[in-house]
Amino acid sequence: MQQFSYTHLFQFTEDLLKKIGCSASDAQLGAKVLLSADLRGIDSHGVARLSGYVRLWEKGRINAQPKIHVSYETPSTAVVDGDGGLGLVVAPYAMQVAIEKAKQVGTGWVSVKNSNHFGIAGYHAMLALDHDMIGIALTNASPLVAPTFSKERLLGTNPIAVAIPAKEEPPFVADMATTTAANGKLEMLQRKGLDTPTGWVQDKEGNPTTSSHGVKEGGALLPLGGDKEHGSHKGYALGAIVDILSAVLSGANYGPWVPPFVAFLDPLPNLVGQGIGHFFGAMRVDAFRPADEFTSHMDQWIRRFRSATPTPGHDKVLIPGDPERELESVRRTQGIPLLPPVVQDLRELGNKFGVPFQ
Amino acid sequence: MQQFSYTHLFQFTEDLLKKIGCSASDAQLGAKVLLSADLRGIDSHGVARLSGYVRLWEKGRINAQPKIHVSYETPSTAVVDGDGGLGLVVAPYAMQVAIEKAKQVGTGWVSVKNSNHFGIAGYHAMLALDHDMIGIALTNASPLVAPTFSKERLLGTNPIAVAIPAKEEPPFVADMATTTAANGKLEMLQRKGLDTPTGWVQDKEGNPTTSSHGVKEGGALLPLGGDKEHGSHKGYALGAIVDILSAVLSGANYGPWVPPFVAFLDPLPNLVGQGIGHFFGAMRVDAFRPADEFTSHMDQWIRRFRSATPTPGHDKVLIPGDPERELESVRRTQGIPLLPPVVQDLRELGNKFGVPFQ
Repeated sequence: MQQFSYTHLFQFTEDLLKKIGCSASDAQLGAKVLLSADLRGIDSHGVARLSGYVRLWEKGRINAQPKIHVSYETPSTAVVDGDGGLGLVVAPYAMQVAIEKAKQVGTGWVSVKNSNHFGIAGYHAMLALDHDMIGIALTNASPLVAPTFSKERLLGTNPIAVAIPAKEEPPFVADMATTTAANGKLEMLQRKGLDTPTGWVQDKEGNPTTSSHGVKEGGALLPLGGDKEHGSHKGYALGAIVDILSAVLSGANYGPWVPPFVAFLDPLPNLVGQGIGHFFGAMRVDAFRPADEFTSHMDQWIRRFRSATPTPGHDKVLIPGDPERELESVRRTQGIPLLPPVVQDLRELGNKFGVPFQ
Repeated sequence: MQQFSYTHLFQFTEDLLKKIGCSASDAQLGAKVLLSADLRGIDSHGVARLSGYVRLWEKGRINAQPKIHVSYETPSTAVVDGDGGLGLVVAPYAMQVAIEKAKQVGTGWVSVKNSNHFGIAGYHAMLALDHDMIGIALTNASPLVAPTFSKERLLGTNPIAVAIPAKEEPPFVADMATTTAANGKLEMLQRKGLDTPTGWVQDKEGNPTTSSHGVKEGGALLPLGGDKEHGSHKGYALGAIVDILSAVLSGANYGPWVPPFVAFLDPLPNLVGQGIGHFFGAMRVDAFRPADEFTSHMDQWIRRFRSATPTPGHDKVLIPGDPERELESVRRTQGIPLLPPVVQDLRELGNKFGVPFQ
């Protein structure tokens, strides 16, 4: 795979976003958020999606110059209206509102409507860390997931991200789809011609399958757990909670009404809300105990777990966020690998908008 | 199995709690919280545990007359010190603090230290529903769960409960351990001499096992997902988040230091905090949008999911809380079934304290 430097991909993305009409600051922020996925190894959510965002803009489904604003608020809560903007810029705005409220009253909670795909949830949750706050970021997404016992796809992969500061140790950063496996992993198996493990996918009849093409062929991803016997009703409940906090609370679309990310599929008629929804939380740790006490105990928590005796065949117990942080330090210096079809796609996109990609 | 009426078990539990020194109001509340588990079919957390609480009291590890109080607060947050009381009464106190804060500033978030086992998480989350609030209840618990790649047990089954009000539909109530299966299900399989499915348990060497005796023999329960390939790192992260919000935030014990529920095991030396920890949240839905709009959309969400086409061999898609609510309506009228060893245990307990159980 070809490697590209972070600064090169950043410049390309920033320039491209300017070409579709984003302000200079939005283009810069959008590029930063999008590429945080490539740095952290969540390749399916990074620059590989840039042309997807652009196609939504071409269809009039993304507003490049949104007037993002707070449409309702109390001392600890707000609803943000994304005005159809890129989720990549709507989400940091909303997270900032949550952080400001936490400064005032201890915690801030913001539900967002009228937005679009926001990149990786972890980026937004991590914005809280510099303020000695715990950050939470959730989003709903287009329906690819079948609840337990459902033949129909009614939920997105609806991720949960939680970032928790420590003192000398790096922060705890969980960022997970509420499915057994995310769609990006299916695509990798498809390219290699491999089947999936059990519990990842059901076919279009609603039966378990190990075909990595199962979702494309009308089947569905399965909630974390895979089947009832292994707790899929819990993964379904988690995905449902994310959907409700992100969209029923804000006035966005929920469940099967969430508009598809791919521009060639139209949203359903009779939408129940506006755009897609997110939910953000920020909690000042010193709203509970002195920050120094909290972060010292987090260090102790992290060290105890990291030093646990491993199971046979494994080196060590990981802390959520460890693999992504390690990969980020490698990719910042050694570059970001892109698959040939992604490179080809970015070249075509660049040519179309007069921003050469090499 | 013998059936017992709710009022009979309630009276017995209330009388017994008075005998160990609880106030009249605490004994009544404790009985109500404990028996909500039996009503909702979570038999492992109900009256079957009463003698366990009493044994902890006998060891001096439960304070029957606690001075539960707020030890720190901001407009949207508080830490509650349970003063070593029964979690059954500490938790409703803390949830009430969260609800009062939500009335004032939109949301309330309370982390609790110096507490004990609080019964079922769902009871406490559901306290928010009457106020048109979303309720959240988390707790840590004694270490029975091995994180992904860990041979050691470092987490409890650390449940997450979320209750969300609707209008004409019954509320959405999720209440789930963050493991593939809770310990109560293992006990049922042991009694029947059956193995577990894969992904529930590892043996004391850290290898996967299907022995339903695996945990008793020094093994561990596994996080939701079961193994890495099926997303157990996500279940581990969820259990870890519950532990941190419940205990690192409040100053309770976390991870392997959480004191055991069983009185015959002593707490570890060099504890890192006080008692076990809980975390509660209450969010006024009208801190985001008019309550009537929210609950109407919740009705639509619930109806759409409940009417989804089911997979082969299943009748319908369930909403979290459906099975427990249906069972509660049966058990309130027809009685609560108790296993012979539980009946025997309650008889002995009653004889010891002069509260006949028949």
